[in-house]
Amino acid sequence: MKVLLIGVGGVGEAIASIADKRDFLEMMVLADYNLNRAKEVQAKLGNPEKYPVEQVDARDGKQIQELVKKYGVNIVVNGCEPAFNESIFDAAFEAGCNYMDMAMTLSHPHPEAPYEKSHVKLGDYQFERAQKWEDKGLLALVGSGVEPGMADVFARYAHDHLFDEIDEIGIRDGNNLQVEGYTVPFGFSIWTTIEECLNPPVIWERDKGWYTTEPFSGEEIFDLPEVGPVEMVNVEHEEVLLVPRYLDKGLKRVTFKFGLGRDFITMLKNLQELGLASTEKVKVNGVEVSPRDVVAATAPNPAYIGPKMTGKTVAGTWVTGRKDGLDREIYLYQVADNQECMKIYNSQAVVAQTAFPPVLMMELLAKGLWKATGVQGPEFFPPEPFMELMAAYDFPYGLQERDSAYKEAQKA
Amino acid sequence: MKVLLIGVGGVGEAIASIADKRDFLEMMVLADYNLNRAKEVQAKLGNPEKYPVEQVDARDGKQIQELVKKYGVNIVVNGCEPAFNESIFDAAFEAGCNYMDMAMTLSHPHPEAPYEKSHVKLGDYQFERAQKWEDKGLLALVGSGVEPGMADVFARYAHDHLFDEIDEIGIRDGNNLQVEGYTVPFGFSIWTTIEECLNPPVIWERDKGWYTTEPFSGEEIFDLPEVGPVEMVNVEHEEVLLVPRYLDKGLKRVTFKFGLGRDFITMLKNLQELGLASTEKVKVNGVEVSPRDVVAATAPNPAYIGPKMTGKTVAGTWVTGRKDGLDREIYLYQVADNQECMKIYNSQAVVAQTAFPPVLMMELLAKGLWKATGVQGPEFFPPEPFMELMAAYDFPYGLQERDSAYKEAQKA
Repeated sequence: MKVLLIGVGGVGEAIASIADKRDFLEMMVLADYNLNRAKEVQAKLGNPEKYPVEQVDARDGKQIQELVKKYGVNIVVNGCEPAFNESIFDAAFEAGCNYMDMAMTLSHPHPEAPYEKSHVKLGDYQFERAQKWEDKGLLALVGSGVEPGMADVFARYAHDHLFDEIDEIGIRDGNNLQVEGYTVPFGFSIWTTIEECLNPPVIWERDKGWYTTEPFSGEEIFDLPEVGPVEMVNVEHEEVLLVPRYLDKGLKRVTFKFGLGRDFITMLKNLQELGLASTEKVKVNGVEVSPRDVVAATAPNPAYIGPKMTGKTVAGTWVTGRKDGLDREIYLYQVADNQECMKIYNSQAVVAQTAFPPVLMMELLAKGLWKATGVQGPEFFPPEPFMELMAAYDFPYGLQERDSAYKEAQKA
Repeated sequence: MKVLLIGVGGVGEAIASIADKRDFLEMMVLADYNLNRAKEVQAKLGNPEKYPVEQVDARDGKQIQELVKKYGVNIVVNGCEPAFNESIFDAAFEAGCNYMDMAMTLSHPHPEAPYEKSHVKLGDYQFERAQKWEDKGLLALVGSGVEPGMADVFARYAHDHLFDEIDEIGIRDGNNLQVEGYTVPFGFSIWTTIEECLNPPVIWERDKGWYTTEPFSGEEIFDLPEVGPVEMVNVEHEEVLLVPRYLDKGLKRVTFKFGLGRDFITMLKNLQELGLASTEKVKVNGVEVSPRDVVAATAPNPAYIGPKMTGKTVAGTWVTGRKDGLDREIYLYQVADNQECMKIYNSQAVVAQTAFPPVLMMELLAKGLWKATGVQGPEFFPPEPFMELMAAYDFPYGLQERDSAYKEAQKA
């Protein structure tokens, strides 16, 4: 498989180094706006022929199309901030190439009732173009990181194998990561974290469809395996948009909650109050900048804080419903330990955990185990080959049978 | 008196509107980088001949000199962020004109021991040039706002009239201001607040001279008249540099503490950790900006939050020592009520309180009650005429006799 990777940030670098250990990859073009950054990653990989570098402006579809042609790649993998999604997604289509991303196109809040009603939703731009992709025989595999991505595979697995009837599918993510010297470190893309956390969170319910709430709503304590109880809040995330498109069995509700922590929430609220979360350009001493871009440029880079970080991060899918006539509650999850991720992949846990699923999915596509056309979320595909390969990628999954009638019956 | 006001921000506007009510002012040229802002203030004042507007770049000394000549002004009043102090101070000197500012030239931390040793101190640049000003027969009245400014006048008054021997002079500032809809509002210049609060606080002691500590050190509860107990911390401020130059009577220690509040301290620490307090330019999408300038541009403008604000702010000088052989502790203070300031001056309390002392001092200079050459802090001048005029400016002072042997003796 020949891959064109657009955007070689923390996740991009981890994608390349994880893929480097597998046998399906023929070539991965490392294309970034910052050519020196691409060269830095190329040098670490130590195989410049397999990993050529290119300078690219992700907003310039023509440049992307030319790179697709120049290298004859099979798939364009989008490793950029989601603000660039439309242009990369469209460029892959124009170039007649398959596409994969880890975050879907962005939402736009409802102009009158931003914290009540959905308006333009995550991925709407992409799903509206599904028929065109279908007609051209191309695949856009959207939301293919860990969350969305692995979490959606877990949802499909739980749906197919663990439940007869489903009430709620809730993605639950949290950690006990600590970074020496920092009280409010960004563990993942700064731009995307702000976007996710301050956008109106989206919830799906069978009777209401998609709707939104206030940021940081829905506080709950969720007890995570290997980490313990974590305070979580609603966050806008792709799984809430993807799961109801593919899964049913009576599904009543889909949510996403993230364990941000009190200090981090305060920091984000302050950024918002100070106007620093905004993406709208402001004039500062004669130049125009987006305040959020400034934060992303100045805050400690999550790609470089790995060595100072300790602890574990847990991503997973919590499902409630019934099996064999008994109430059942499960959590299908993956625990990434930061020091292990640093040792194996030289990448911090959150970044490595986001990077392994797209590589695994590329491998499944390369081997013909996953096949599709159109615009598809990970729920579309058989979950078993993905889950079987996870351990070989050093990211094994766990299945927690949580206290329920079903668990009691199993014990007996 | 003819005044050239450089910088017509919140404080600049308040200076003009307070001066407008007094009879000493012949003309005040409103000069700002943003000509529309100057015109906005001119329109509010409603007397364009008395308040001509000019566009000026405060970094460009030549432009300032030309304006001094064009209008034949008696004094240049610096209403800009202190980052521009050197250029305005030097331009006034070159133009042969008196000068006044409300914040002195900036400090530079010690390269090896920033939180132990002083290095370049507040106002060093100005006091190093004192002889040149003296020789030319010009006055630079530095630190002439409320703090520094009024607080220094209070220190001189306490020194002259209330104590035989002094132990400590500590400026203490706090408030119970609330702004509807905001949890961490900047009540005063955003740029300067960040500068003051994150710079190493400076302390003076007779035995050690000037030295620095960690930001937010020296936490204490200070009970403020009309406001109540407020949690205060050390903050870098000019009074600590000015008071020991002029006052003695055995003075052992000079400090400045400000009641920032827990939430505001957290916000400032976060800004620092995220790199947003820095003034060093960073490259963001092809343009270069200073992150702190971005914060100053995006955060809710303290000049415009006045109508949403309620509460009181207290500035003052706390002195301990002995009088007539008895221990004495006093607090000389000024309480500004926000709603009253909005009503009288259409300006929020912190801004109005900063703006009245320079106007009062201009009046004293205009009337010959204050006279000097060289570079001088407010301690140089007789405090009585200042304090006598305060009530006429609607900013009366209070004297609190705090629990001490002296107070007990007075009661008896």
